[in-house]
Amino acid sequence: MTHSKYNRRNFIRTGATAGLGLTLLPYAWATPQQKEKIKIGFIGVGLRGQNHLELALKRTDVEVVAICDIQQVMLDTSIDMFKKANKTLPKQFKDNPYAYRDLLKIKEIDAVIISTPWEWHYTMCMEAMQAGKYVGCEVITGITINEMHELVKTSEVTGKPLMMLENVCYRRDVLAVLQMVRKNMFGEIIHLQGGYQHDLREVKFNDGKQPYGGGVQFGATGFSEAQWRTAHSVLRNGDLYPTHGIGPLAMMININRGNRFVSLTSFASKARGLHNYIVDKAGEQHPNAKVNFKLGDVVTTMIKCANEETILLTHDTSLPRPYSLGFRVQGAKGIWMDLNNSIYLEGTSPQAHRWEPAKPYLENNDHPLWKKYGADATGAGHGGMDFFVLHAFVESVKRQTQTPLDVYDAVTWSAITPLSEKSIAMGGQLVDFPDFTNGQWVNRKNKFALDDSY
Amino acid sequence: MTHSKYNRRNFIRTGATAGLGLTLLPYAWATPQQKEKIKIGFIGVGLRGQNHLELALKRTDVEVVAICDIQQVMLDTSIDMFKKANKTLPKQFKDNPYAYRDLLKIKEIDAVIISTPWEWHYTMCMEAMQAGKYVGCEVITGITINEMHELVKTSEVTGKPLMMLENVCYRRDVLAVLQMVRKNMFGEIIHLQGGYQHDLREVKFNDGKQPYGGGVQFGATGFSEAQWRTAHSVLRNGDLYPTHGIGPLAMMININRGNRFVSLTSFASKARGLHNYIVDKAGEQHPNAKVNFKLGDVVTTMIKCANEETILLTHDTSLPRPYSLGFRVQGAKGIWMDLNNSIYLEGTSPQAHRWEPAKPYLENNDHPLWKKYGADATGAGHGGMDFFVLHAFVESVKRQTQTPLDVYDAVTWSAITPLSEKSIAMGGQLVDFPDFTNGQWVNRKNKFALDDSY
Repeated sequence: MTHSKYNRRNFIRTGATAGLGLTLLPYAWATPQQKEKIKIGFIGVGLRGQNHLELALKRTDVEVVAICDIQQVMLDTSIDMFKKANKTLPKQFKDNPYAYRDLLKIKEIDAVIISTPWEWHYTMCMEAMQAGKYVGCEVITGITINEMHELVKTSEVTGKPLMMLENVCYRRDVLAVLQMVRKNMFGEIIHLQGGYQHDLREVKFNDGKQPYGGGVQFGATGFSEAQWRTAHSVLRNGDLYPTHGIGPLAMMININRGNRFVSLTSFASKARGLHNYIVDKAGEQHPNAKVNFKLGDVVTTMIKCANEETILLTHDTSLPRPYSLGFRVQGAKGIWMDLNNSIYLEGTSPQAHRWEPAKPYLENNDHPLWKKYGADATGAGHGGMDFFVLHAFVESVKRQTQTPLDVYDAVTWSAITPLSEKSIAMGGQLVDFPDFTNGQWVNRKNKFALDDSY
Repeated sequence: MTHSKYNRRNFIRTGATAGLGLTLLPYAWATPQQKEKIKIGFIGVGLRGQNHLELALKRTDVEVVAICDIQQVMLDTSIDMFKKANKTLPKQFKDNPYAYRDLLKIKEIDAVIISTPWEWHYTMCMEAMQAGKYVGCEVITGITINEMHELVKTSEVTGKPLMMLENVCYRRDVLAVLQMVRKNMFGEIIHLQGGYQHDLREVKFNDGKQPYGGGVQFGATGFSEAQWRTAHSVLRNGDLYPTHGIGPLAMMININRGNRFVSLTSFASKARGLHNYIVDKAGEQHPNAKVNFKLGDVVTTMIKCANEETILLTHDTSLPRPYSLGFRVQGAKGIWMDLNNSIYLEGTSPQAHRWEPAKPYLENNDHPLWKKYGADATGAGHGGMDFFVLHAFVESVKRQTQTPLDVYDAVTWSAITPLSEKSIAMGGQLVDFPDFTNGQWVNRKNKFALDDSY
């Protein structure tokens, strides 16, 4: 019985990988192809791509050999960055939206970094993996559930990792809290909260010249993100930007690694913020005052996990409010919240029922990555976390190993958007969460940020 | 056409009240029966009843003529309170759980205050209204949806108000924020949050002698609330205590008065806190370590309203954590949160995207009730709010008018518990919220705390 069971499982596993023509890349498994220096191509060098480019140009283990964009101004700004950094100028690809295909044909390129509008991520990720490149893609790796499944299949078939560049996974306080979770300081994790609460009105609207504010233009007459991002607020009602919240939380409870998301439900409030902004700035008569924004101002999503934790996510980007990702990590022995920068740990905190400042705990549990690279990260975007997410990607390519955030993470986190849209469209009905690992979550282990390497 | 429409509506309304044999009591409509001094009977004089009793004994417009309890120690303590206050001693009713029925037979009693275990509230409220008494009942006025409907019908038929004594509706900051909402300082309300986040482990367990902690007993071997409240955590999984959170929020968006709750969904986390507490304090071998607590440690509930606001409620009473009702009031122009005691109002707050302290706003918008009675409330339970909830009830009885929190509020807020249980039992499915006003929410007006009277 035991024998035949073993054989059967062995058969299935061999059969599966044989069918795909490969074995999956292991984590942290140095191969003979290990590289000292890698060649990267950038697909999309708008403002976000330039953030990554600036960091890449500082590294001695990276050569940026090609850049691609459809806007000349973005290419020009990028070329200036190369000159300032005294780096060899890259090949440029432009002229049409599919110019990236020529970039992908360059055989010497090891990896691409994709920083384009959301609706391009899926196609570019697919073609990049098929071209044999490692893929680092900005957040949201697809729009539909079907795309998520295709990305997984393609990564498995090609053996090429897809890493979603979710920088908040590397936020200093978030990594310190991850350390505390792993030291069992909060006890068994019970409930988590996070989200994206960021007044983006001056991102979604501008004057067509500057990236932030100054007008109520978007789409063809807007500039930078307003050109493409705002359309999603017009047409879609769901948690459009879940990954900053869910990424760090997923890692704390080992999602896709002994745990998984099982079901989800979302509620959306009325939509007022974006319309009000247009009317306030440009009056009732402005043509954009007639736009009907479908995105509810506050979208609240609840997720139930296989190990019975609950997660609450909030998406709140259209109202006047201070920035907050709203993290809450709560276990059987204590709780951390970022809004009040406070912690309570039973038996450790001096007064029962009283918060104490989180700061000493965060400092005492500073992650090895931050201890080692904190100085390098200084000045990098978003409080330094951009350094770490690029570092992890580059190190994975150099080692020719799996990325610490993998394709299963990318699609599981991104899938929250279409699932929340579906739930909201049905008035808040419960929806099942797909298992993108096809059952492998039972055996997979969490290897994210285990030490100071990457 | 208009004429016949009018006639039809008029017919329905007359028909409805005719069928019930009464007209509903108006709000703030002084009647000839107005009273200078009222007589109250107390049903339940445990620790919570004694809080109310102490405040009632201070008032010159209230005579407490009868008290009822099944525990002699609680009656004795109460009698001592009468003596200390130099008040005429009340009649005592005891000996069996139905002794309250003899109290209700006293014709001169205008009103009763019910502070008994939850599972007794419905029956006592029903019989008290049927006996012609005003009813002030501690929070949770029933367990099942059917009970809620019966309470409404009985209040309508008897013409006797049922006021749930939800004290947080009168919390000083909550009333100041209500003022700000009514002044439109937050703009149109979009999203609300609240809840009950209070480590009740030392309430749910004690040594059978003291009310709070010192042991892991509950039920027959516990004392005070542990005698009855803990059983609900053993047997039920839902938001068991929603009213402190929902009461204040419901008033801000005029629930049952031009708005209503439409649907609800709840998720419950795993249940660990209560079991862990028993094991930590008394070891794995203690008989109570074998109890299976059904109540999830963190229960999260989302409610959608007719006017498209969303509400998030959290119930979190079994884990080590600091107390917080977690209020968030968010509108199209600004936001208040109580966790960080902060506010942001667009165009008013000095720095965009930055919180500022809530305190000056709360002081500048102090409610007329607190301005007038703040000194009287000093020393009253729960930061003074207990004074106001009793005051509102007493003033309503004196004026023989509807109570400011009425039967529709009582049952709508209490109904969240069975609805959340139902949703959780179905894995988080969406459930419809009953309209306890039977359509009258369309026409009803919010009269709660409009001035400094009650």
